[in-house]
This record gives sequence, C-alpha cells and structure tokens, in this order.
Amino acid sequence: MKALVYHGPGQKSWEDVADAAIQEPTDVVVRVDTTTICGTDLHILQGDVAAVTDGRILGHEAVGTITAVGDAIKGFAVGDRVLVPAITKCGRCEYCQRGMPSHCQTVGGIGWIFGHLIDGTQAELVRVPYADTSLYAVPDGVSNEQAIFLADSLPTGYEVGVLAGGVRPGNTVAVVGSGAVGLSAILTTGLWGASKIIAIDSNKFRLEKAYEFGATDTVEVGPNAVSDVLGLTDGLGVDVAIEAVGYPETLLTAARLVRPGGTIANIGVHGAPVTLPMEELWIQNITLTMGLVDTVSIPTLLKMVASGRIPAELMGTHTFTFDQIDDAYDVFKNAAANLALKVIITP
Amino acid sequence: MKALVYHGPGQKSWEDVADAAIQEPTDVVVRVDTTTICGTDLHILQGDVAAVTDGRILGHEAVGTITAVGDAIKGFAVGDRVLVPAITKCGRCEYCQRGMPSHCQTVGGIGWIFGHLIDGTQAELVRVPYADTSLYAVPDGVSNEQAIFLADSLPTGYEVGVLAGGVRPGNTVAVVGSGAVGLSAILTTGLWGASKIIAIDSNKFRLEKAYEFGATDTVEVGPNAVSDVLGLTDGLGVDVAIEAVGYPETLLTAARLVRPGGTIANIGVHGAPVTLPMEELWIQNITLTMGLVDTVSIPTLLKMVASGRIPAELMGTHTFTFDQIDDAYDVFKNAAANLALKVIITP
Amino acid sequence: MKALVYHGPGQKSWEDVADAAIQEPTDVVVRVDTTTICGTDLHILQGDVAAVTDGRILGHEAVGTITAVGDAIKGFAVGDRVLVPAITKCGRCEYCQRGMPSHCQTVGGIGWIFGHLIDGTQAELVRVPYADTSLYAVPDGVSNEQAIFLADSLPTGYEVGVLAGGVRPGNTVAVVGSGAVGLSAILTTGLWGASKIIAIDSNKFRLEKAYEFGATDTVEVGPNAVSDVLGLTDGLGVDVAIEAVGYPETLLTAARLVRPGGTIANIGVHGAPVTLPMEELWIQNITLTMGLVDTVSIPTLLKMVASGRIPAELMGTHTFTFDQIDDAYDVFKNAAANLALKVIITP
Amino acid sequence: MKALVYHGPGQKSWEDVADAAIQEPTDVVVRVDTTTICGTDLHILQGDVAAVTDGRILGHEAVGTITAVGDAIKGFAVGDRVLVPAITKCGRCEYCQRGMPSHCQTVGGIGWIFGHLIDGTQAELVRVPYADTSLYAVPDGVSNEQAIFLADSLPTGYEVGVLAGGVRPGNTVAVVGSGAVGLSAILTTGLWGASKIIAIDSNKFRLEKAYEFGATDTVEVGPNAVSDVLGLTDGLGVDVAIEAVGYPETLLTAARLVRPGGTIANIGVHGAPVTLPMEELWIQNITLTMGLVDTVSIPTLLKMVASGRIPAELMGTHTFTFDQIDDAYDVFKNAAANLALKVIITP
Repeated sequence: MKALVYHGPGQKSWEDVADAAIQEPTDVVVRVDTTTICGTDLHILQGDVAAVTDGRILGHEAVGTITAVGDAIKGFAVGDRVLVPAITKCGRCEYCQRGMPSHCQTVGGIGWIFGHLIDGTQAELVRVPYADTSLYAVPDGVSNEQAIFLADSLPTGYEVGVLAGGVRPGNTVAVVGSGAVGLSAILTTGLWGASKIIAIDSNKFRLEKAYEFGATDTVEVGPNAVSDVLGLTDGLGVDVAIEAVGYPETLLTAARLVRPGGTIANIGVHGAPVTLPMEELWIQNITLTMGLVDTVSIPTLLKMVASGRIPAELMGTHTFTFDQIDDAYDVFKNAAANLALKVIITP
Repeated sequence: MKALVYHGPGQKSWEDVADAAIQEPTDVVVRVDTTTICGTDLHILQGDVAAVTDGRILGHEAVGTITAVGDAIKGFAVGDRVLVPAITKCGRCEYCQRGMPSHCQTVGGIGWIFGHLIDGTQAELVRVPYADTSLYAVPDGVSNEQAIFLADSLPTGYEVGVLAGGVRPGNTVAVVGSGAVGLSAILTTGLWGASKIIAIDSNKFRLEKAYEFGATDTVEVGPNAVSDVLGLTDGLGVDVAIEAVGYPETLLTAARLVRPGGTIANIGVHGAPVTLPMEELWIQNITLTMGLVDTVSIPTLLKMVASGRIPAELMGTHTFTFDQIDDAYDVFKNAAANLALKVIITP
Repeated sequence: MKALVYHGPGQKSWEDVADAAIQEPTDVVVRVDTTTICGTDLHILQGDVAAVTDGRILGHEAVGTITAVGDAIKGFAVGDRVLVPAITKCGRCEYCQRGMPSHCQTVGGIGWIFGHLIDGTQAELVRVPYADTSLYAVPDGVSNEQAIFLADSLPTGYEVGVLAGGVRPGNTVAVVGSGAVGLSAILTTGLWGASKIIAIDSNKFRLEKAYEFGATDTVEVGPNAVSDVLGLTDGLGVDVAIEAVGYPETLLTAARLVRPGGTIANIGVHGAPVTLPMEELWIQNITLTMGLVDTVSIPTLLKMVASGRIPAELMGTHTFTFDQIDDAYDVFKNAAANLALKVIITP
Repeated sequence: MKALVYHGPGQKSWEDVADAAIQEPTDVVVRVDTTTICGTDLHILQGDVAAVTDGRILGHEAVGTITAVGDAIKGFAVGDRVLVPAITKCGRCEYCQRGMPSHCQTVGGIGWIFGHLIDGTQAELVRVPYADTSLYAVPDGVSNEQAIFLADSLPTGYEVGVLAGGVRPGNTVAVVGSGAVGLSAILTTGLWGASKIIAIDSNKFRLEKAYEFGATDTVEVGPNAVSDVLGLTDGLGVDVAIEAVGYPETLLTAARLVRPGGTIANIGVHGAPVTLPMEELWIQNITLTMGLVDTVSIPTLLKMVASGRIPAELMGTHTFTFDQIDDAYDVFKNAAANLALKVIITP
C-alpha cells in the first residue's frame, strides 16, 4: 500500500510500505476513504514531537471501510463504513471507564496513538487497535466529507472548549482564535444555547467564516479587542472564554475577557510557559480548564450532523487526492493566507 | 463603643468610636460576643489592601446577639444569636441569585465588605447591611466557639477547596499547606468520601494537627515531597490538589501532584504572578479553580457541626478578651511558632 | 381601581376595589400594563382551589410599571418597567437560598401567592411583596407582549419540562400535550440541543403550531401514537418525555415513550392519583420529575428573548382590553376550539 | 464440575455439569472461591422470572481466580483474583459508553445475564463473557469476604439509592427497609456527608444492625413512623427517601417522608403497580428514581473498602460450603428470622 511516511524533521514522502494487517484479535483494518491534516501533523514535521520517529506513517483522522476484522471483534464487520477517531480507547482502564480515554493507560498513557505511537491514517489502509471500543459506525445521512471532521476538530472544539467551559443557556462566549478548532467551538456552542458568541481573530476571512459558523459578533485583534468585548457584555466580560490558539498572549487575552465566576477553556496546544497574573485572578472565582480531546462526544455530534443541526461540511474548504498530499500540506500550512480551514484528502 | 481601628500600615488601636447604628431598613446591629483574626487582617495591617483606609474598624468574622433591627427585617429579631459571615449578600443581583455573593454587584462589586469597605467585627457592636439575606441563626447545640470558624475559615476551605476541587467519593486529595485554611479543607474533605487525604507542610505541629483534622497521610515539605505523594497514589498523583498557601512554588507543587484529569483548587491569596508550565499541563486535562468564598455553604456546615460530624472547635487554640486584642494579633501573626491555628476573642 | 374579583365557584366580576398600596417596606406597587390568563385561573373558577376565597383578585402574571416603592427597596424605582412573575421569593429562607422559591417558607409555604393567597394581577394595580428579590427589570428590546409569557408559561415549560428532564445535546424529546405549556417546553428545548423534538396532541391546530415552535416531528394521539414515536427513535423511545397535560393516561403515555435511562418530566397539574406499572418500570433506570415552577430561569429566558433566539411573542394569539376580560376568559376556556394559545390583556 | 442447577419453580440441585469453558476470545473462566445468594435468586426459584429456564446454573455474584483466558484478553491473566459483578458490559454499546451497562444492548438488552440468560456463579467454575470490560481485580487488602458484597448488594445500595437519590453533604436521609440492600445504602450514604440517616424497619435485629452500619436514628414501622421521621426533620421530611423493599406501601411511605424538592430513590424490585397520589405530589418538586444497578461504582467502593472506610464484611453473617448450599438458601430465605443479612458460600 501507499502511505505518507515521516523521515525526520521536514521530511515526509508518499511511498510504498507493507500493507496494514491484523495483529491482535481486537484489531480491524480500515481502507481509508477520506482523511485530513491536523495542526499537530505540522508540529510533528517541525520535529516538535519527539515520540514520532523515522518511518512512522502520519495522520490520526479517517473515515473508511473495514476490510478485515480480528477474531474478537463483535461490533463491526467487513464492509462497514466507520469513523476512525483521533483517540484510541481500550475501554477497560480506569481512564476509559470514566470517559477520559485521552489518557487511556493501556494504549500508551495517552489515547492519541495514530501517527504518533503507531502508524496513522494518511495511508491507503490503517490498522485500528481496540476497534470495538474505538470505532464509530457512520450513519446514513452523514457523508464522509462531514464525518471526517468528527475525528478530531469538532470534538476538540466541543469537548475541550464548549463542554469543559461549561457553556449554559443564556451565556456569553468569546472564542479567541477562529482557525479550524476555534470555529469548531463556535459551531457547537449553539447546542448549549449561548446568547452571544463573539469570535476574535486577526484574519478577516476567518471572522467572516465565524459568522457562517454561528458567531453573533466578531472582534478583530488589536488594542481595543478586550474593551470591545467588555462593551458587548455589560462591562463585566463573558461567561466563558475559549482559547483556541496556544500562545501566552492569547491565553492572557482570554483571562482578561472572562467575568468573575466565569471559565477559561484552553484548547490551544502550548509550547511555552504562561505567566498568569494570579495576584489579580485568585479573587475572581475563575476556572481554567485544559486538555486533550476524548472524542467521547462523537455519538452526540453524529446525531446533530445527521439531523442537520451541525453543518460539519462547512469545515472542508479544499479537496485533494492521495497523490496530491504534498499540495494539501502546503495549503494547510498557510491556511489563513489560502483561505483554507481544513483540507479533505481522498484516494 | 470600643473597636479595633486601623490607622495606616502597622497602626491599629482598640479605642472609643461612635456606636454602630441602623442606617437602612435592611440593617441590623449585632453585639459581638465572639470574633477572631484572619490572615487577611494581617495583610491589611501590612498596607497591602489599598481599599482599607485610616479609621476603618477591622475584622470580618463574628458571632453575636442582635440589639437592633431595621424596619424591613423579617427574619431576625432583637436577642437572636447569629453568625455574621465574611460575605454580605444583597440577595437580588445576578451574582447573589446564582449563589456567588462573593461578587455581589450591589454591596461593592465584592461581597467582602466588613473591615474592608465598611466597619468590621473586631468591635463591641457591628452594623450588618442586608441582614435578612446575609446573617445565619446559630442553632442550639452549636457554641459560639464553634460557629465563629464558620464565618470564614471553614467555608473557605470547604467551598474554595473541597467543592471547587470537585472531591468525590474514593478520590485522593492532597492539601498543600496546613494552616487554618488548609486544615479547614482537610476537616471538610471527608464529607465527600475522600479515600486518602494527604497533608503537606513544613511545620511538624501542623502536620500533627492535620491527622487530628482527618488527614490519612502527611508529607513534610522537602525535595522528596512530590515523589512521596506519587508513591501514595499509584505513581499518577492525586485526583484533587488543594493549594492553601498563596505562593508560586506552592501552586506549582500542587500542579506537580495532580494526575491527568484532576483538579487544582487554589485557595491561597496570591501577591505575585505565577508562571505555569502550560507546555506540559495543556494535555493533562487538568482544571484549575480559584476564588473568594461565597459562604453559601454555612447552612450545610452548621448542620454538620450540630450533628457532631465536623468538630469545628478544634480550630480555636488560643483565647483572648477584647482588651487583649493586641496580644491576639501577636500570637496569630506567628501562628506556627506559637502552635496556634485560630484565636478566639470575646468581650 | 378596577380588578377582576372572585366571588365563589363560577363567579367573577371586573369591579371597583380599593387601590393596591404599600404595606411593608419591602413592597412595591405596579401598574399592570399587560396581563394574561393561566389554566390555574380556570381551576380556581371551578372551585378546585380551596385556598382562594370570595373577594380575592385573580391572576398571577403581569408586566407593568412601578408606581410606588417601599422604604427598603433598593433595586427598583418608580417608573421602572418590570415583570411580575408567578412566584414570589423572600430570598432568605432555605428554599429561596437553594433556588427553589416555589416552596418559599416565608411567603406561604408555597411561592405562588398572587391570585391565590394575596390579591393578584388581573387588576389596574398590584402590590408586590418582597419586590427586590422577586421582580425582574424588562430589558429594552423585549416587548410587554413577549415578557408577559415569561411570568409563568415559558419558565414552566423550561424549568419543569426541559431542565428537570435534563435534556442534553443530541437527545430525543417527546412532549405529550401541545397546549401553552407543552409549546413552551418545545420552544425552549432547542436551547439544550435536542436532536429530535416530537410533539404529541389530538388537536391539529396545536400540532401545526408545534412545528412553528420548533418541533421536528408531530404525532397525533391515537392507537399508534406510541409505536409512531418508537419508530422515530430506534425502537427504544425518547431520552426525555415531557408530560404537559395532567391526566393519568397522558402520564402513562409518557412512561411508555421513554427509553431505559430516560426521564419523564411531569409538568401537568394532576387532579387524581396515577397507577404506575412499577413492576415494569423499576428496572428501566427511569427518573420521574415533577414540580411547580421556580421562575428562577427568567434572567436566562429574558436574554434569549432579547437576542431573538426565543420568539416568545408566538404564544399570544388573541388580544383584549381590561373591560373585555370576560371575553378573554371565554376564549381561553376553549382555547383549542378557538385556535388560541394564550391571551394578552391590556388596559 | 458441580453447580447449583435450576429445574423449574421450587426445584434446584447441586449436581455435576460440564465444566465452564472459553467460548469466545473475550471470555475468561473463573474458579469460584466465594459466592453468595441474592433476593433475586429467591424470586427465580418461585418461578417469577420467566427468562430463567430448566437447566440454568443460578447465581450472579462471585469472587474467584482466573483459570483460563480467551485470546483477546489483555487486562487479566490466569491466577488473577477477580470480582465477578452482577452486570456484564460489552463496553462499546451506547449504554455501556454512557456508564449504564445495566441496559447493555449487546449482552441481552439487560446487563444482568449470570444465572438469568447464561449460566451463573453458584458453581465451581463460571464462564465470564466480555471479561476485559466486566471483571475487576481485587486489590491486596480487600478479602474475598469483603469483595463478594461488591458484586451486587453494595453497589445497588450505593448507585440506585445514594447516587440516584443525589445525597449531598448536610442532607437528611431515610431508608425504608433495612435488609441487605437497605443496609448497603446506609453503609455508603456516609460517603456523601449525610447529616442524618434514619433507618426504618419492622425488625428489631435489623434496626440494631442499622446503627452498626451508620444510621444515626431508627424508626420502627407503625402508625407513628411517618410523624416520627417528620419530628426528626423540622416537620418537613427528609431530603432523600430511599425505598429498599419493593411494595406499594413502602414506596408510598417513602413518598410521605420526603420534603418538597427532595428525591425518592426506589431500589425495591416491584411485582405490582403502585398508585401514586400525583394530585398531591405534582406540586412538591419531587424526583422519583428507579433502576437496576450498573456496578460502575465498584472501583470507588473497592478503594473505600481497602482504606477501611467501608466495613463491607459486616454484611456477611453466615458462612457455608458449596455442599451446604441448600442450607444457605434456607437461612437466607428467612433472613430476618435467622438474624441473617447475607450468606457467604465457599468451596
């Protein structure tokens, strides 16, 4: 089969490798019909993720068709159309049992293993461990081009942003950063009845998209951004500030936007420490949440996509075939400049 | 009447002032039968709290007897024995209605006003605004010497530590700092069925006290403290780490003690920024909570004290009369050295 | 002033009475600009509510303008446009403090006192006790004709149906009965991201209205109603079944519609015992909730009406003036036949 | 091997059968070291459970040692000491994923299959399906005689009584019925900080036991039982009333004991409909919960037993060997008269 193989910082190639195959009775093999690229894949290519070594097939998002099942598989059969989520769950460790497979103790201490600790989904075939507890059947009425964004982006925005932020009906919500993950938070905040959803970004294309995704207001990054948001929220700030970038200044902006008793939900992947003004914050009854996605909200999100309430397809702006995967990376690397959100890659 | 009056940094005196009196129909006047000193009072005396100006009567904790009631008071009468909590609540602003009077928009944007924005409780008499919604009747079977610690210390440990930390049955809990507030958290953690309560401090007297208050294990501050706690918790750390000191290093210690998916509940009053290793924490699904007490747990705590399940009286180690209030401050200022937790001050 | 006075079963008249006036420092007097009629008013007129005696002014819903305030009132002033909700809350009893003023221990053991234990809102003026903690300011951008339905119907559907039912994103919801309260539940269920909202009624007009209010499916009452709903929900039934009628058979229908692990939220006012098949239900992990509205969701609902997300005005189908109040009762008494939901009554 | 086989109503025998053996790669076989009898086993023997047919091995509770593992088993090995809980969970269906394996869609639409839909645990060996997601390792420091009561009784009292009832610190709790399950609720209510735990029964032995298990008060069944409980709870009744019997009159007693806003948690297995006075209850803001145990609280309970906070061993009053299993049934059938709670049966 062909696959996108990592060969050290800056090096990747779409090349021939041995076919993915069943290794354990709890495995299945999936033929990849649709995949995409995540910001994390870019980090890996920069050499930022030490655990990814030469020879690893990249990617952790896929929709595909099962081509082989291990002896212990009960819930799936050859031919099933399935969503392969970013997170693998054994289903039995303490973390899986409490619904937090992001930290599954069995598969690696961390639930994100595709394109990280084992071979990934940017390939013609992928082996899926613990398939019975990890895969999701894609219902009729949900297309591959919708489902692919439920592998990682949408559940990340929803779980790490909206759910962790504890959005409740009537709440005001600010989302700092309107890239794919920020927009995912915006798209799913409405499920919890937010009264105001304020998108904040420096890119005009993304702010326009934000309205399409459900924002009620947008604020451009700049010296007046914080006061603009306070002006929209009785001077007190928002109930929930979602950080979807991953830099110290964006997290501090989120902290300045939240009212006493509010929540800062950090989604951003941080590469450096952040100096928090705890001498001001301690008294504000603020909660700061953070985390890797669990993907346990996928059943809910699939229902909402199927019922038409979440137009997940809006996330896909560019389409490529496997042999154009280098172009796909180039477009995604400069997403804002290319007016891109997420790319769709198919055979 | 006599009262302890603040006269600028380092200056206070027990002196004659005008009697506290009804100003609004929603006021009552309480004769102070028991009061105490809080760490915040020491901060004020160091000049750290700019809002407190020359002439202010100090103190925000009292148990006493009502001597006068305003025309609108329905819930209390002259002669009632009442608890005056640290937080005043108007009962009608959005924050009060959602149970967060710590940020009451009416009484000053902050619910802590005694000995801060209005005259306080270290006095023979104190005027209590919004008394119907702020005061609590002290039930028979709860002594003044127990109730006084429900004005601030115990609800702070319970609400900002145990409740904000989300302690649940079976959880392991570490409490960094075993002063009055840390011990309050330890004393009330058992209400939520913690399986292990680990007290951490540098002071042996306090660690001994911690066992009395319900700790199951104690760890002395030092180079092995973190690894000692990990050793007690399967190598993963605790479910809830409660910070009860207020320094950068103690908050960072709490962050090192908590397992993926856990909560750091900050109770400490911070005077400086804290540099958090967000590049390590973001992926750990950790929640950081912080805040000023609301004192809304007082009815629950009064029931638990009355039923004998919370021996609140353990908190009081030294007793003084009003005219010895300077001595009381001296002892409390060096609490650990004086083997003191909280002082009790009576007429 | 003029008011609608109850004179025993079947007897009411719009007649001259003494002006409403301040009695306590915590009172205000409101000039009624808009009122409406509730199903409970019909019950009273049938003589079903023993606590309502000859001479009582009817009605418990109003929007109006403050004409006088008691000495203790801080949050409102003469001239303010306010919503008078069905429930009065003292703000200080244990029930009010926990957000359940429906059972306020101070105002009567029950929070519903207007047109019940004290004079009501179907009058030119009404005295409002505990006004600071009971009234709500009506924001600009919310009309009287919208706000009036937040006095009782909408919070009842939302709190006793949607919130008590614990609707969560992705859930399927059935609403048994599409009168004013059932439609209120339908209108607010979307705030919690329901994936399917199935309205059930015997009246075609109401089922058409249900679609306007947000239902995704409707089912006509009949021998196939239960199987129709099961057919819409994978054969297992809905996550939440809301009962909005108040008869044994409608509650039993709700019980047949709910899947294992689901919730039956009873809103209906029952007049007779209900025989539940506990020998079948006990094993189904079902929760049955019931209750009187607290009206504590009014701030949330006001925000959602102001932001355009809840078109509350849809509820008002017929308009009358005070001197036509007998006609208003006649229309409302036969609401379904008259294609009426709620009536609006103004000076 | 030998096993207790059901042969129709009233008929059972300890007889030779084929050895339990691996059938699926997800199975293990466990040698039963300790088992017990449940009230449900008595119902089966009366012929009340139609799904149990001639030839079925009885029992759904065991602690034992693994003697064989299927090819897909990762979490357990031959020789492991394990708890076999009453509920089997596939770990992947919608119900299992949301923590409600009591209604696992895979193993039979119901999670209770041992001694019901497949052969059970009152045998020398038992085959355990879906073992990786269903079994629990028994930690050192927890004896077989403690662990056996975590297979069903204790999690039932805790989950269906205490957790479903939503007991919170400070609450008053009444438990109607002090048999094994009622006492299990009493034993675990303290984990949630109840201020008062009132046991109600007609049997003096059980009421004495109730004190041992943590009750603070006991009330004997009789004409004054309800008023006695109201007298202990400010005249308003308890916050949570747990029904642990399963008759109409005991459920109605629970309904009379609960205050407005409280919860009735039904644990009892009902054999007949119950006529609820909905005309009185609807306005009381009461919640009624019911259900089959999920056994998902076992990890929490194991920690609490290991830490000494739950003395599970108190539940075992009589000990038998396998060949005395008929005697064990005789004693358990008349438990109250025999001063028995639960029996322990070992090889």
